[in-house]
Formats: sequence, structure tokens, C-alpha cells
Amino acid sequence: MSLRVSEQYLQGFVTAEEYKQVEESAAKALATVIKGDGAGNDFLGWRYLPDVPDKEEYARIKSAAEKIKGMCDALVVIGIGGSYLGARAAIEYCLGTNYNAFAKKNGAPEIYFVGKDLSASTITETLELLKGKEVCLNVISKSGTTTEPAIAFRIFREWMENKYGEKAAERIFVTTDKARGKLKEFSTEKGYETFVVPDDVGGRFSVLSPVGLLPIACAGIDIDEMISGALDARTAYTAKDSLYENDCLKYAAIRNILYAKGRKVEVLASYEPSLNMTAEWWKQLYGESEGKGKKGIFPASVCFTTDLHSLGQFIQDGTPVLFETVIDLKTPAHKVTVPFDASDCDGLNFIANKDLHDVNRTAFMATAMAHTEGDVPNIVLEIDSRSAYDFGYAVFFFELACAVSGYMLGVNPFDQPGVEGYKKNMFALLGKPGAQFDEIRAKLAEKM
Amino acid sequence: MSLRVSEQYLQGFVTAEEYKQVEESAAKALATVIKGDGAGNDFLGWRYLPDVPDKEEYARIKSAAEKIKGMCDALVVIGIGGSYLGARAAIEYCLGTNYNAFAKKNGAPEIYFVGKDLSASTITETLELLKGKEVCLNVISKSGTTTEPAIAFRIFREWMENKYGEKAAERIFVTTDKARGKLKEFSTEKGYETFVVPDDVGGRFSVLSPVGLLPIACAGIDIDEMISGALDARTAYTAKDSLYENDCLKYAAIRNILYAKGRKVEVLASYEPSLNMTAEWWKQLYGESEGKGKKGIFPASVCFTTDLHSLGQFIQDGTPVLFETVIDLKTPAHKVTVPFDASDCDGLNFIANKDLHDVNRTAFMATAMAHTEGDVPNIVLEIDSRSAYDFGYAVFFFELACAVSGYMLGVNPFDQPGVEGYKKNMFALLGKPGAQFDEIRAKLAEKM
Repeated sequence: MSLRVSEQYLQGFVTAEEYKQVEESAAKALATVIKGDGAGNDFLGWRYLPDVPDKEEYARIKSAAEKIKGMCDALVVIGIGGSYLGARAAIEYCLGTNYNAFAKKNGAPEIYFVGKDLSASTITETLELLKGKEVCLNVISKSGTTTEPAIAFRIFREWMENKYGEKAAERIFVTTDKARGKLKEFSTEKGYETFVVPDDVGGRFSVLSPVGLLPIACAGIDIDEMISGALDARTAYTAKDSLYENDCLKYAAIRNILYAKGRKVEVLASYEPSLNMTAEWWKQLYGESEGKGKKGIFPASVCFTTDLHSLGQFIQDGTPVLFETVIDLKTPAHKVTVPFDASDCDGLNFIANKDLHDVNRTAFMATAMAHTEGDVPNIVLEIDSRSAYDFGYAVFFFELACAVSGYMLGVNPFDQPGVEGYKKNMFALLGKPGAQFDEIRAKLAEKM
Repeated sequence: MSLRVSEQYLQGFVTAEEYKQVEESAAKALATVIKGDGAGNDFLGWRYLPDVPDKEEYARIKSAAEKIKGMCDALVVIGIGGSYLGARAAIEYCLGTNYNAFAKKNGAPEIYFVGKDLSASTITETLELLKGKEVCLNVISKSGTTTEPAIAFRIFREWMENKYGEKAAERIFVTTDKARGKLKEFSTEKGYETFVVPDDVGGRFSVLSPVGLLPIACAGIDIDEMISGALDARTAYTAKDSLYENDCLKYAAIRNILYAKGRKVEVLASYEPSLNMTAEWWKQLYGESEGKGKKGIFPASVCFTTDLHSLGQFIQDGTPVLFETVIDLKTPAHKVTVPFDASDCDGLNFIANKDLHDVNRTAFMATAMAHTEGDVPNIVLEIDSRSAYDFGYAVFFFELACAVSGYMLGVNPFDQPGVEGYKKNMFALLGKPGAQFDEIRAKLAEKM
């Protein structure tokens, strides 16, 4: 198992009695996910992604990635939410935050993410950075009509057509609905190669589908390894339905126990900046799955030790509203030794010649002990390494735990009814034609 | 005034009666800050930073910045917490997240931040990125003994000495205590140019001191403008002690009113990725100042519209534990127009030819209306632009409001007693010599 839940820093926070109280509901939630007879069960396709349900398409993803790697210096990925976070999380997890600086060395294109906001600066700066480079596009949108990626696609498609003329079509790859939608139609007309956003997989659960796999493969990451990690995680976490023997259930159970005792905020902490985007992916997964009906744990994240010097004070001694889930990475991607310094001007010679990762892990243990002393429960997730295999493993762990946790909480973990409100308001304010928008517009005008 | 508090999206959340109840305590808190007779009043030096208390040193900062700009391709800034966040916030606010990619064009060196974590990857990747480049160092540490920057200084100093020999000393700039501490001693011995971390300014309030100003000036940002913004903010926000006439008091008052009504989390939202590091700086400022004695509002941040597709669901409809403070940026740094598309394959021609920033601001209004409808109060901070002047203005606004808010909450906003716990544990576990650490070590061993 490349991911384990440690309860070492939960003593006094979660009792045997409390485990017992949720034992049955955890087992039942897992059974519901496996049987597929719960709320939102038309969105359970993520369970089968580790089987690579469409082998022909999977092979096409790999060959498209090779083609893209061969024909461009930069790949522009257009997507938002689940069509953005998973791929970027995987790329930073495996390759680090400086992946673009090392792209050439890795034999892969630089990767730029756009269509993830409405900032004119994002667009302008990215266009500037593309100057003089050979470029490919991967636009990812189920419907093709989501505002942010649609606007970006207009701009970058125009740019590509100005640069490459009709040949632009060979450089544009579209991940969208398999049959419906104007983007699919338009792609067919233009001759773009297309990949499928599965019908039964929600955006936040889609990283192991073509949505995530194409950009991840383009970055030079071994997607076979990643899928293999997810498959092993599924085997491991669906074999037993007792939280005492299944770490995935245990994580879901602990979260629900702590939530019931007033912990309304979960802070996901890691000690590596390369995991920051994984935390962002995790925030969508849990926040969107559980935050409904006035319920749910608010997901926040920190990168230690950096944020011990910013949020450490609050976590240690502020309003006791939170608990921490800490990723303890066992094997670092790099090795650095603390140098000996004859002057010892910082008084640190007592750690000279130590491995920096050991110092980092000591900081983790020291912090866990201090924070638990400050009455903050710490769940620890031990993860072996930053390999593609371990990323895939962690992805499936988090997804399954999220589904289980949502059912335990009594919500449908697969819908997101609350995200439509601002969209409808926005279309109304932007003057979108249609009776529905006229009505909203009238209401908003009254309010203003 | 380049920053204004709008109450447009607070209707129904904060009543006239509630304002009245805190009116006096807000005025009193401001008076305490101005008179300097409250808790932690040996750390009020930040109030005078807009006066540039040491003109000679300020001139030296400017000439050192010019020297650094002339002699290197990359400046490595070593610091953590307040010795890191302010400078990086300013640089990204004014220059964007891609500042290094545009450094040459801006006539400034690239800037790399290290000593802000214990990750071996941060060190290894930065060293790799420096290959073949001319480099200068700015190490920022009051005592010189903080673990993260001290380790980084050992590594990068060694690297500099290997590259430049004795000439390395001309390229190393040290911001530290004015007289005490081994780093000051060591710098004198080596002949490094030094700048002062003032005694009466805490790290999180130090961005307008040499701590922040040297790296900010090196990035090519006009620090005169930044200081001038801060000075104007001080004038504006200390003139009147009524929250009805002073937006700084108003922000502090609203936060405390909402906190008293059960809102334990404040989400700072902006619609520009270039403000993400400003949000990180803000988190330290508020979290460390207020999170003590089991009190305080947990500071979180989001970047919209990106995070509307991740945390939007939770904010709209999850556990009602939070409120939002939204930065409404009036003038963007770049201009982009939504292109017309003959195919209209995304159905967005109704916004063709619109300014993208107007679409972004429409998303803000639509979201504020949707979230308030979902029972989430929205404080809006209108800020004119991403100029250095407006950054300085906002810095002073947030600092003063934080001091006032902390006093209203009944805490000392200038200490951070809770950050020592993990440090002591860490030194003990790392085998630091000394009776104090032997004792802690024994205790921790028992616990484990």
C-alpha cells in the first residue's frame, strides 16, 4: 500500500466508542458506492476508470501525446474546475512547480493553463510567452459553452489560425462530450481530433479519464503507472468494509466524527510545494461533494513549513474550529545535505550533514505534537513518493473516501446544485438573450 | 482614496444597531493604536514606515537595487514568513505571476525565493535554474538563526563562494538586526552590505521596511510610489475615529460583528491570480495577529472565477461558517476583447466585443448577489489598480485595520506566542544541545 492512514496524532480526539458509532454507517456507505444504488449513482463512472474502459481511446491518448510532444514547444490547456485541477495537480506532483523550466530537459512541451479565470492578464501574458514557439491546444469542456474556457478557446483558436492557417486543425485537440454539444459538432467540421468526457464521471472525479490523461501524458508522465496505482488502490480499499481494516473508510469516518464534534474546517497540509496543486484538486473534490444543504467541512490548505510562519499561530492557538490532515511524504524527489559551516554563525552545526528531508520530516513530527498539544487533531496520510503510481493511488483513495464520506454525511456527493446561481446571474447581467434571463435580470435590477 | 469599503452586499447581515454597538470600541481601538498605549506597543514601528524614518538607509536600498540590477540575472531572496510574503506579494501584485519570464524585458533580475520551506526540491530546482546565471543574494533574518533561511543561506553562500570566490561578498546583501546577533557580526566580518530589520516592527508588518523594500526595488517596482500610497492611506485612515467615516474602522468593525455572530472563517477573494500572494500575505497578517487565546477568524483565500468551480458550491450552500471579503479591482493591468466568432459554437456571441475585464467584474457582481442570496455576507474592497501606489495604500489599510480589529477582539495583535511550540519540539528532536532541549526531548519520547 502506497498510502496509509496513521492515527498516531489522534489520541484523545477520536475514541474507540466513536469509531464504533460510525462503523456501520461507514460500511454501509462503502456498500452503497460499490453497489451503485445511492444518490447521484448516474455519476459513478470514476470507479471504472482504473480499468481503462475504452482501450482504443487510451491508445489514441498516448499517440496524440507523442505527436504533441514532437510538434510543439508549448501546449495550451484550456479548462476550468475539474477540467483543469486534476491535470495540473498531477503535473506538479510528479514534476514539481518548475515543470515548465525543465520541460525541454524532460523532452516535453511547456504547459500553460488558461480558460481557468477571466483575467485579461492571464490571457495577455500567456500570449506573450507563446511568441516564437510552436504551439498545440487541448480544449477541455463537456458542453463547450462554459464561459471561461469558451472565451479562451475563441482567443487562442484565432491566434492559432493566424499562425498556422488551415494547418491549425492538426494542432487542436478537443476533449468534450462524445456526441452532443456544439463543440463536438464544430470539432468534427474542423477535423480536430477529439476525446471523450465520459457522461457518468463528474468533473472533479475526472482526472483519470481523457480529461486529465491527455495533458498529463503530454507532460511526459507515465500514465500507465498512474492508472496502475489507481487500480491497486481500488483493490486495496474495496476489499474490506471494516474501518479498522480499510484506511479509506477510516479517513472518511474520522472526518465525520470530528465534524460532528464541531470541527468545521479541514486543513490539508503538506511539506512540499509540489503538492500545493494536489491540495487545490482535493479542495474541489471535497468542497463540491460535501458542501451542500448547509452541511460539510470547509476545505483549506497550507504548505508547511512556509505556512507555520503565517497560519501556525492560528492553528496552534486560535478558534478551535479546525483539524489538520497532514501528508507525510516518505521519499523526497531530491536529496540535499545540510552543509557544515566553520563559522556556525547560525548555531546550526548540530544538524550539519543531516539529510534535509529528515529535517523536514522532523519539522512535521514536531508540528504534529505541538498542534495536538494545542488541541488540534491531526490525521496523517503517509504517502510513499512523488511517483505517478503513488499519485494515481492517492487519487483513488481521495475519491473513494470522498464518496463514502458524503454518504455518511447524508448528502449526494455527486451533484453541485449551488454553482448555478452565480452563472445564471452572470448571464443575465451580461445580457444573454432568453426569457429565463430577462426574468433574472429584472429581479437583480430590483435588488440593486 | 484608492481603496474603499462597499457595504452593498452586507444588507441584512450587519444592522445599524450592530454598528452602534461596536462604534465606541472601534474608535477606542484606533485611539489605542495611535497613542501607542495598548498591548504589544513595543511593536508599533510600522505606523512610521511611510515616513521613511531612515533616509540614508532608504537611499542605500535604492542604490543597492540599482547595483544588483546591473550585476546579476537572478536575485535569490532568502527569508520566511514576514521576511518573504510581503516582497513576493508586492512583486506579483504589480508585475504578475509571470514576473520572472518578463524580468529581462523589465530590465530587472529574475527573483527566486528560498529559505521559505525545508523542501529539498525547492533547493535543488533553484540551484539548477541558476546555472549559467550571474547571481546576487539577499538574506533576510532578524536573528540569523531561523532554521529555514539559515540552512538556505549555508547552501547558497557556499554556491556563491564556489562561483565567485572572495568576490561573492560584493553580491551578498543582508537584512538583519542593526547590532545584535551572529548574522550581523558575520556580515561585518565578511564585508556584506547590511540593512536593518527594525526592532519595533514585527515580521508580518515589515513589508514597507528594508525587509520588503530591497527585493521589491530590485524587481523594478517604484518604491517611492509604494511608500507614498502608504502615507496617503495613513493620512486618510487616521483622520477620523468614526466607523461611518473611516473605511479602515468599518472593515475592522464588520469583521468583529460577523465573528460574534458565528462566522469563524473569512475568505479573501479576488478575481486576479496576480493577487494570490497578496492574499497569502494577508493570511499571515490576520491569522498571526488574531488567532490566539482560542479566538480569531480563520483566514482562507480563493481566486475567482477559478475557485467558483471548486469552492463555489461550498460557499453558496455549505456549512454557514464563513463570510467573504472580495477585492473588486477597478482597472486591470491588461486589455483583452472577447472576439466575435462566426460559428458561435459556444453561444457566446452576445458578449462578443466586450472588454474581458467587464465580464470579470460582471462575474464578481453576479457572484456577490448569488452568495448573499445563499446567506454569505460579502464585504467588498474596491481597489483602483495594480500600481505600486495602490499596493502601498492597501498594505497600510490592512495593517491598521488588523491592529484595530485585534484590539476590538481583545487580543494583543503584535505577538505570536503559539509559533514557538513546534520550533522547540523540532530543535529537541533534531538533537540541539542544551538542558532546555534535553527536557523537551524526554517529554516527547514519553509521548511517542
